[in-house]
Amino acid sequence: MDIKRIVEDNDTKAGRLFDLVIQFLIVLSLVTFSISTLPDLSESTHQILYGIEVVTVIIFSLEYILRILVADQKLKYIFSFYGIVDLIAILPFYINRSVDLRSIRVIRLLRLFRILKFVKYSKALKRYRAAFLSIKEELIILIITTSFVIYISAVGIYYFENDAQPEIFKSIFHSLWWAVATLTTVGYGDIYPVTVGGKIFTYVILMVGLCILAVPAGLLASAMLNNGGKTKDRPRR
Amino acid sequence: MDIKRIVEDNDTKAGRLFDLVIQFLIVLSLVTFSISTLPDLSESTHQILYGIEVVTVIIFSLEYILRILVADQKLKYIFSFYGIVDLIAILPFYINRSVDLRSIRVIRLLRLFRILKFVKYSKALKRYRAAFLSIKEELIILIITTSFVIYISAVGIYYFENDAQPEIFKSIFHSLWWAVATLTTVGYGDIYPVTVGGKIFTYVILMVGLCILAVPAGLLASAMLNNGGKTKDRPRR
Amino acid sequence: MDIKRIVEDNDTKAGRLFDLVIQFLIVLSLVTFSISTLPDLSESTHQILYGIEVVTVIIFSLEYILRILVADQKLKYIFSFYGIVDLIAILPFYINRSVDLRSIRVIRLLRLFRILKFVKYSKALKRYRAAFLSIKEELIILIITTSFVIYISAVGIYYFENDAQPEIFKSIFHSLWWAVATLTTVGYGDIYPVTVGGKIFTYVILMVGLCILAVPAGLLASAMLNNGGKTKDRPRR
Amino acid sequence: MDIKRIVEDNDTKAGRLFDLVIQFLIVLSLVTFSISTLPDLSESTHQILYGIEVVTVIIFSLEYILRILVADQKLKYIFSFYGIVDLIAILPFYINRSVDLRSIRVIRLLRLFRILKFVKYSKALKRYRAAFLSIKEELIILIITTSFVIYISAVGIYYFENDAQPEIFKSIFHSLWWAVATLTTVGYGDIYPVTVGGKIFTYVILMVGLCILAVPAGLLASAMLNNGGKTKDRPRR
Repeated sequence: MDIKRIVEDNDTKAGRLFDLVIQFLIVLSLVTFSISTLPDLSESTHQILYGIEVVTVIIFSLEYILRILVADQKLKYIFSFYGIVDLIAILPFYINRSVDLRSIRVIRLLRLFRILKFVKYSKALKRYRAAFLSIKEELIILIITTSFVIYISAVGIYYFENDAQPEIFKSIFHSLWWAVATLTTVGYGDIYPVTVGGKIFTYVILMVGLCILAVPAGLLASAMLNNGGKTKDRPRR
Repeated sequence: MDIKRIVEDNDTKAGRLFDLVIQFLIVLSLVTFSISTLPDLSESTHQILYGIEVVTVIIFSLEYILRILVADQKLKYIFSFYGIVDLIAILPFYINRSVDLRSIRVIRLLRLFRILKFVKYSKALKRYRAAFLSIKEELIILIITTSFVIYISAVGIYYFENDAQPEIFKSIFHSLWWAVATLTTVGYGDIYPVTVGGKIFTYVILMVGLCILAVPAGLLASAMLNNGGKTKDRPRR
Repeated sequence: MDIKRIVEDNDTKAGRLFDLVIQFLIVLSLVTFSISTLPDLSESTHQILYGIEVVTVIIFSLEYILRILVADQKLKYIFSFYGIVDLIAILPFYINRSVDLRSIRVIRLLRLFRILKFVKYSKALKRYRAAFLSIKEELIILIITTSFVIYISAVGIYYFENDAQPEIFKSIFHSLWWAVATLTTVGYGDIYPVTVGGKIFTYVILMVGLCILAVPAGLLASAMLNNGGKTKDRPRR
Repeated sequence: MDIKRIVEDNDTKAGRLFDLVIQFLIVLSLVTFSISTLPDLSESTHQILYGIEVVTVIIFSLEYILRILVADQKLKYIFSFYGIVDLIAILPFYINRSVDLRSIRVIRLLRLFRILKFVKYSKALKRYRAAFLSIKEELIILIITTSFVIYISAVGIYYFENDAQPEIFKSIFHSLWWAVATLTTVGYGDIYPVTVGGKIFTYVILMVGLCILAVPAGLLASAMLNNGGKTKDRPRR
């Protein structure tokens, strides 16, 4: 069947065009979503944005119905990852019409899920996903280790700085924010040690912490290199 | 013996459950410890936190006694790394009861050692330790080199900035704090050069410093890759 | 022909000297360009800078004419990459003389294109370009993924912080600036979350984001290592 | 000869002790140097620091004379790298006694050269130097490319921000400081873009810049791995 091939594959000219149109609408939808958060928009801008929103949702809805119609196993598509994503991408618009306006902001956030539709169309992101899955274990170690180091850093700095800056290093939870900003080397500058002990502790924890975080990074690089051939041959040959 | 196997191994269902319960209690203990540092807690919250503390310490104490009882060589366990960790995890609570309240804060800090109990239960962290040991030498080079670069940076910036900002770049020790924040790229923004000479020096030291630090990082990556098979085969096969 | 060899190759002594003189003039030209942006320059400094500018442009113009004259296929050189760069490097000076002064600043910016002349003379940069081309695909993945993560971070932080700091996290576009500064770990400190939700979100997005960005970095390193021999043998043997 | 072996080698017990004493004195000397920069030191502290300084300089002087005496080719040692370092380490003290006090601060800086004495005694740093030399070419590319990217960033941000913040982005030289702090991801927060154009430019330059800098880092890692065996076998076997 012709329409089935256009909708589901991208090995024909019409199929590629169909994909391109949907991709363009996703980006358009995200851009209008972003613009709609700007304060002090004029009434006419609001109406243009709303118009674009209506058009994209109608096309996404048609796409969703079309995909159900052409699918061999309709239920399987509906409950597949992309089937649910396609539904969530249009659902907020319809819910928004029928329910109370107070909850509008949380529902609008759901529109962001449209970005996940994009994953399907991007070969680069597919390849990325393969690489990601192959080093899942290393990433889990990285996250556990980081959390470990961050927690110990937060407790340490709390004991050094709490007396000198009781309003800034109020509790271990406030110190955790410092630990996150410091060990990721972001360093906003809203919270930093001022005591000699706290500064020496920061030096030690940065030396030890960055070393400790370098080890899983090395494990990760090592795993990536070993999986390199596997991961990269697929999309190229 | 059955209990011995539950306590020391995790290859039975009961053994895994035992481990899981202890792990949950460690996390619970750390969470209540963190909450107890929050200022302006109500009296009832304090009592709930104290209750949880009493329960976890009792269970950890029972676990400690149980481990001594089932161990074949009791003294060997008591003076092993995990034996000492298990003791330190409960000791602060009992000492706190019998000594003067003034020293309470330092002793409370010892409770953090409970986090080390966690190491025993985490396979990921075990594997991490193996990787860490295999590149010990590279890490020592990294720390020596970093300290070297940081010290030279501190002396240099002191000579450039001391005249212009005598209150901020007060001494080499104050400059060391700048060097740590700059070369780790944290950059809090509480201390930075303002003279032209100091800024050019910062540029040079960042170029040279980050290059110099990239070399041990490369040595480390290289050592990790060579030890990759060894380090990774152990926990997998 | 002798002049042809001096201008086009650098395997003779005179050819190397010719290259060195042009390279020196490019650096001189960039330095005077930079100095001319300093505020409060004296009239005499302006005249010295203008003098240097006139001399360098005349020499670059002579070089350009010479290159056309010695080229076997004159049109091919004129429309080649380096031919166009050589023209743009001198054009702003002549246009500046004949057109309205209002547009002077944009035209002055074109002078920066002289830096591209430098590429031709630098072996290191040539080698760099080869390495760059061999990992083009990985870099595109890196940029797409980064943009993806940055956009999602911006939307998330907007929902957490907009209520608490409506003047700072004004819209998703303002939040994008935060996401760029945070995920690249620059962290200027002009914009950062203050709510508990926003801080936890920052922690999560930094953990996930830096992991996600580590994967294409790994792909890139892996591709570089595989292309290592190819890329590096060329300039060495 | 016995003394010759103690001074020049460290394969005997006495030789290792001799090295250890000198290393301790270097660290002591650097610590007292750092303390002497502290403001508001008491007179007695000054005298203690001066006493330590006199003792260390006398021992370093004796060491220097001893090394000349035991050397087979005396002139060769005197003009070798370590011979000059050993001289510079003691010279400032003697010069300081005989010349005008105004130049005291610059001469004191020369004392820092004592840190170079340390290089000789550290095996880790020797190994580091070998690795460093093997990737010299890659490091030069890295520094050239970085300077290139930093300069272009500075010119770009100058055109975007100069109108909005004429006092902060005063000239290309002031913008260079921004480019250094941004592209190294230090981000002090003393200078950052506020215009929409400047922020988008920062995003683009960070994406492109960090990618461009990742390439030489990859070249470097690749070179390190290829030289790995060579570099690492030397100190181990």
